Amino acid sequence: MTVETALAYAESHHSAALDQLAELLRIPTVSTASEHAADMVRGAEWIADRLRKLGLTAEVAPTAGHPVVLGEYPGAGKGAPTLLVYGHYDVQPADPVGEWISPPFEPTIRGEDLFARGASDMKGQLVAHLAAVEAIGRTGSLPVNLIYLVEGEEEIGSPNMESFIQSHRDRLACDVVLNLDSMILRPDLPSIVYGLRGLAYFELRVYGPAHDLHSGQFGGAVHNPAQVLCELINGMHDRRGRVTLPGFYDKVRPLGPEEREALALVPEREEDLQRMTGVPRLWGEKGYTVVERLGARPTLEVNGLLSGFTGEGSKTVLPSTAMAKISMRLVPDQTPDEVHAQLLAYLRREAPATVRWEVTSLAGGLPAIVRRNTEEMRAAARALTETFGRPPVFVREGGSIHVVSLMQSLLGRESILMGFSLPDDNLHAPNEKLHVPNFYRGIEAYIRFAYGLVR
Amino acid sequence: MTVETALAYAESHHSAALDQLAELLRIPTVSTASEHAADMVRGAEWIADRLRKLGLTAEVAPTAGHPVVLGEYPGAGKGAPTLLVYGHYDVQPADPVGEWISPPFEPTIRGEDLFARGASDMKGQLVAHLAAVEAIGRTGSLPVNLIYLVEGEEEIGSPNMESFIQSHRDRLACDVVLNLDSMILRPDLPSIVYGLRGLAYFELRVYGPAHDLHSGQFGGAVHNPAQVLCELINGMHDRRGRVTLPGFYDKVRPLGPEEREALALVPEREEDLQRMTGVPRLWGEKGYTVVERLGARPTLEVNGLLSGFTGEGSKTVLPSTAMAKISMRLVPDQTPDEVHAQLLAYLRREAPATVRWEVTSLAGGLPAIVRRNTEEMRAAARALTETFGRPPVFVREGGSIHVVSLMQSLLGRESILMGFSLPDDNLHAPNEKLHVPNFYRGIEAYIRFAYGLVR
Repeated sequence: MTVETALAYAESHHSAALDQLAELLRIPTVSTASEHAADMVRGAEWIADRLRKLGLTAEVAPTAGHPVVLGEYPGAGKGAPTLLVYGHYDVQPADPVGEWISPPFEPTIRGEDLFARGASDMKGQLVAHLAAVEAIGRTGSLPVNLIYLVEGEEEIGSPNMESFIQSHRDRLACDVVLNLDSMILRPDLPSIVYGLRGLAYFELRVYGPAHDLHSGQFGGAVHNPAQVLCELINGMHDRRGRVTLPGFYDKVRPLGPEEREALALVPEREEDLQRMTGVPRLWGEKGYTVVERLGARPTLEVNGLLSGFTGEGSKTVLPSTAMAKISMRLVPDQTPDEVHAQLLAYLRREAPATVRWEVTSLAGGLPAIVRRNTEEMRAAARALTETFGRPPVFVREGGSIHVVSLMQSLLGRESILMGFSLPDDNLHAPNEKLHVPNFYRGIEAYIRFAYGLVR
Repeated sequence: MTVETALAYAESHHSAALDQLAELLRIPTVSTASEHAADMVRGAEWIADRLRKLGLTAEVAPTAGHPVVLGEYPGAGKGAPTLLVYGHYDVQPADPVGEWISPPFEPTIRGEDLFARGASDMKGQLVAHLAAVEAIGRTGSLPVNLIYLVEGEEEIGSPNMESFIQSHRDRLACDVVLNLDSMILRPDLPSIVYGLRGLAYFELRVYGPAHDLHSGQFGGAVHNPAQVLCELINGMHDRRGRVTLPGFYDKVRPLGPEEREALALVPEREEDLQRMTGVPRLWGEKGYTVVERLGARPTLEVNGLLSGFTGEGSKTVLPSTAMAKISMRLVPDQTPDEVHAQLLAYLRREAPATVRWEVTSLAGGLPAIVRRNTEEMRAAARALTETFGRPPVFVREGGSIHVVSLMQSLLGRESILMGFSLPDDNLHAPNEKLHVPNFYRGIEAYIRFAYGLVR
């Protein structure tokens, strides 16, 4: 009943853990697509079964959307700390499916990588943690009480997490939150994410004529809504790459010299980013390093555009409407509601009287920052140091995890973010992959973290 | 054997003519969609059969694309003039199909209108002219020699018309060209189009990262190609609604005071246009009336936009590519090739080094102007005056008919444009319709024009 016996057990069960991961990856738990509703239930049941086999009680709890898996192990007793482990079993859509080299829901190993939708975001981490609990349980008994909270709506903005946590506040009471949905910078460079960007996601529709028109008959008399949409989007950035929505930067915490120094310890990323993305040249807000731009500065992105005729060949249409999906990544202390108001103010000021427009808010989440000087943060740093042979760097991540801010506001607990996806894992894109050696190191680090909390 | 007996025959055969039109409209001759290739042949055969029944020889002549119907009646003899009648049997795609009140290829009469794709553009005119020939032939003999040239690729820019006319130059030799693909301004206001805009149609693709990226992980480091596309499109117009492509207006013939005066006789169109389109306010190049902007000034339109995620809900993707369909309506003496070069010059100057881009040319056609003081133009004006009880106004049309400039350059013949579609007939849009009383007046006018040529 030591760390070492658990680590040895884990090592001798690597292939069993990988098999389990493959099983879960075969269930296409795409939360945004209603045709996958039954798969979502299958995914949740799979996790609950697995928890029960590990000796936890588990239930698949309904919500207004996809169910939550809630697992509990109070067996370490009142004297031991309670660890709440957060994860999600839903994944992004696989489209464009044609760009996958192997089918997205048929896990396939090529080299050191396992390719499948959700491999890295984040069924890999979830199954790694379950394997860590198995290793500890089979070689001794768990040193901490455990609660698992595994949701099915992270990829669509966790719309039901707030009410779920609120109505399960007593059962979720804990000492430490471990959020598995995180990354490290390189396979050999452990890192702890202490900052996360928030999200505000909108659909903007511009309406011109009541129906599509012949561009020859009407071109020159009617303002083209696709053109107007482009004009509006063009105006959302200035020449320095800054977002122009009125008041957008008012609540952004400026980066102090101390934090800029700490972030400068993160290894140079330009080359990596250029290789991973294949762009001819990087881009971003002037006056900030790329590490700062990705983690500590807000952005505005066009996620989708649709208007008029988009098929093969030519159709001389003057379209009646044009749509853009537009989202902002937020940093403390911006809020999705305030950014929504700023977007509306911008459109009221800039949209011409020749069209009508409307904005729908589709998702939102607050940004978060976690203190770096707590007992559990030190335990996490130790677990990573022992696993990787070098101490972690601290980074602010560009992505959004809505639940981190919910845990803070509703349960009063900051989250330790410890996960093992890599920047080039193609999250949300075709050919998502998981670096298999990292999957195994993840199991190790989770074992060490559990023991480290009671050292 | 007089105009009057032919007109009486036509009047007593209205419903037979309408039945024939419905038969042709049921054949979905969508030239741009490869799945309709067999329907295209059916459409061509239908017309050839009809011509043969009227006593013409007719063949369905192959081209590199869809076939051309060529019909001939040399029976009026060498002393009589030869009239070449041009039409097309292809139609625009019906999408968005969901916005049609009745199915697009199931002709349906509501009120005085016949709804179907192609009713007004331009199977209505074609069947009306066939009915006129029938009326003349059944009550006497044709006073003119006839050639029918009915193509199947007008809606995709007539890519094979040039080589077809060139290789059939001898058989197409004629004295007068009657182009049926035209319009009048209002049901009670006859009009003759003497100017047509040309067309240059392109697809512009902007390429950013090699694959779609997670907008949180990469947003702030990579230039979003959808944003770049919007910036490029935004820059294509200035604040006065003028197109900014370098040299775009260099070859545009300025509107002289005499022509501006003649165009000012066209009735005020602002209210009509606003009602037909449903836009809150009209728009266009400053310094020109709406009649001038629609017929005598060039434009640039966005016909389609596509990038990233466009489904239901939210997907936080930073797209790898963005596409726009962009077309220009040209006026004399602009050419599609020169405008292509201007677009490339603009993109070379304006596109940032953070992306790659490419332009594909999809269709092109020269603009045209027809003299108003010829013998055949006077015959056309008389036919309309007698049919409508008032003289026509002369207008320049916004649409493009590639073949008009081909007839001029290859056969040395200007075209008389006489057709009866209306500005609110929803050409190229859902719920295309034909005003049935105009269909009958069209038959009358075509009978009078044929007799008028030999008066």
